[in-house]
Amino acid sequence: MSIQEITARELNAEQFIADQAASIRATVGDGAAINALSGGVDSSAVTMLAHRALGDRLRTYFVDNGIMREGEPERVVALFADLGVPVELVDARDRFLDALAGITDPEEKREAVTQTFYKGVFGDLVKHGGAKFLLQGTILTDVDETAAGIKRQHNVFEQIGIDPQQAFGYTIIEPLIQLRKDGVRLVAAALGLPEAIWNRMPFPGPALAARVIGEATRERIALVRGATAILEEELAGVPAFQYMAILHEDRVTGMRENRREFGNQIEVRCWDSLDARTATPHHLPWETLERLAARLVSEVPGVVSVTYHIGTKPPSTMEVV
Amino acid sequence: MSIQEITARELNAEQFIADQAASIRATVGDGAAINALSGGVDSSAVTMLAHRALGDRLRTYFVDNGIMREGEPERVVALFADLGVPVELVDARDRFLDALAGITDPEEKREAVTQTFYKGVFGDLVKHGGAKFLLQGTILTDVDETAAGIKRQHNVFEQIGIDPQQAFGYTIIEPLIQLRKDGVRLVAAALGLPEAIWNRMPFPGPALAARVIGEATRERIALVRGATAILEEELAGVPAFQYMAILHEDRVTGMRENRREFGNQIEVRCWDSLDARTATPHHLPWETLERLAARLVSEVPGVVSVTYHIGTKPPSTMEVV
Repeated sequence: MSIQEITARELNAEQFIADQAASIRATVGDGAAINALSGGVDSSAVTMLAHRALGDRLRTYFVDNGIMREGEPERVVALFADLGVPVELVDARDRFLDALAGITDPEEKREAVTQTFYKGVFGDLVKHGGAKFLLQGTILTDVDETAAGIKRQHNVFEQIGIDPQQAFGYTIIEPLIQLRKDGVRLVAAALGLPEAIWNRMPFPGPALAARVIGEATRERIALVRGATAILEEELAGVPAFQYMAILHEDRVTGMRENRREFGNQIEVRCWDSLDARTATPHHLPWETLERLAARLVSEVPGVVSVTYHIGTKPPSTMEVV
Repeated sequence: MSIQEITARELNAEQFIADQAASIRATVGDGAAINALSGGVDSSAVTMLAHRALGDRLRTYFVDNGIMREGEPERVVALFADLGVPVELVDARDRFLDALAGITDPEEKREAVTQTFYKGVFGDLVKHGGAKFLLQGTILTDVDETAAGIKRQHNVFEQIGIDPQQAFGYTIIEPLIQLRKDGVRLVAAALGLPEAIWNRMPFPGPALAARVIGEATRERIALVRGATAILEEELAGVPAFQYMAILHEDRVTGMRENRREFGNQIEVRCWDSLDARTATPHHLPWETLERLAARLVSEVPGVVSVTYHIGTKPPSTMEVV
């Protein structure tokens, strides 16, 4: 089936929202639907759109996987509560962190997070929730990337190894599938989501587990979470495509109070990019770089060294893991 | 025994050279002396000074430890040959690289290099050379640092566990012991050494083994040697205290020709400092940083990521190992 693209330029966001809401209502009828909200722009737009269409016949889950940024689950749930959308917070922190234990290979780490989400936590909600409709924030770029073999298909049923029709008569609804990211941002803004959501920086699926080289233990996730909070505070307002703090596994020699300290290194990346396909380092002012380094070594326990990524994509990738 | 400091300001280099040469001649008489040349400013000054005093009664060794910079042994030997000073090149590459095999801890790595030099290679030359006088480039700062417990004593006999007087009647001569680095540079210049020597950037005793995080294998030494050559070419003329390329042990995700490449990361450090006790990152222009990164990823096999150190000393140290 070929999908008819709607470009951001030709998009009429209000009309699109009305059409999609009507279509969701027509499909779901008087049934119930569920969806998972991550706080990113795609799932946030789907949540608002489906809530507008279905009201309390939509059940939205936010899965706390233990590898989120500081205060993220509470912030997202509160933000949607303010918009009149109830979100159920699912505490799955131990399931994810246990699944990540002992894994150091980047691809295995990503796989562990994906599997725990789809086959585990959200899979259970899908199977036992009673709803027959599942809303997903798939966009056209995801479809392209799946076709090109770049990114794995994130269709929940494929992930849990189930033919949805046969097994449950489940119907998947993907209201954003004709749009690309820029179109979704327009729709999200028109849906009344704040700029902090519709203009949100990309954040990886494996979350902070992608920001730790080597094993993503509870302790190391806590360190990189602290570093990320400092980074997001210091770089707020910087017109970059994406920035991130990465905790290295390598230990490096440092000194504190005249004593040797064999400590951690944090790498900062701040990318300029149009579409994430190629990227160059953002030219942060030295003053910012030095203040950032000073805060990271003084506020994140055991950090003695801070670097800034100066390579391009390719041959680097945006994320280190 | 307290040592009378001669500051750079009060130093009369020509007079100092004449006095020390006379003193060396008086001490050595018609005997022979040996010394080890590393190509650094201290051992280069001692070599020139002692050669001026003793002529062909001085035997100077350059130990190739396999962890030198590109072309370094040949360059140093040729440079001294041009100055009329014969230097014997000792090929000890396998001894050092074998001693480093399997060692990942920074302190153990430094210890392996020191022990191989003093107890091994140079120890043999001292024991079997027949000379009764040994010239060393110890300077006043080394003495201070030993007293303060910062740096280990590098006296060759202590290192090989021998009381020199009892064992061989060996006499150690340290003609630079009243000077600090700035004074040594003046003496080295007055001795006719080229600026490339007397104004040379500091380089660590464990050489490129200090520029590799984790095991310093032959292959990884070769990688960081290539990176160092590029760095020294690109940054020649930059008025920094010291710069270096460091090969990390962490592997990072990258891509080349649209395929994933799990590759290496090189960290660049370029320090501003007066005396190495504290240091700040040199504000290299972005153009330089980006050209450096571009060359490192294209010319050093398997490198997909390059970072620049933005922290200060403390809590970082100058070197990473």
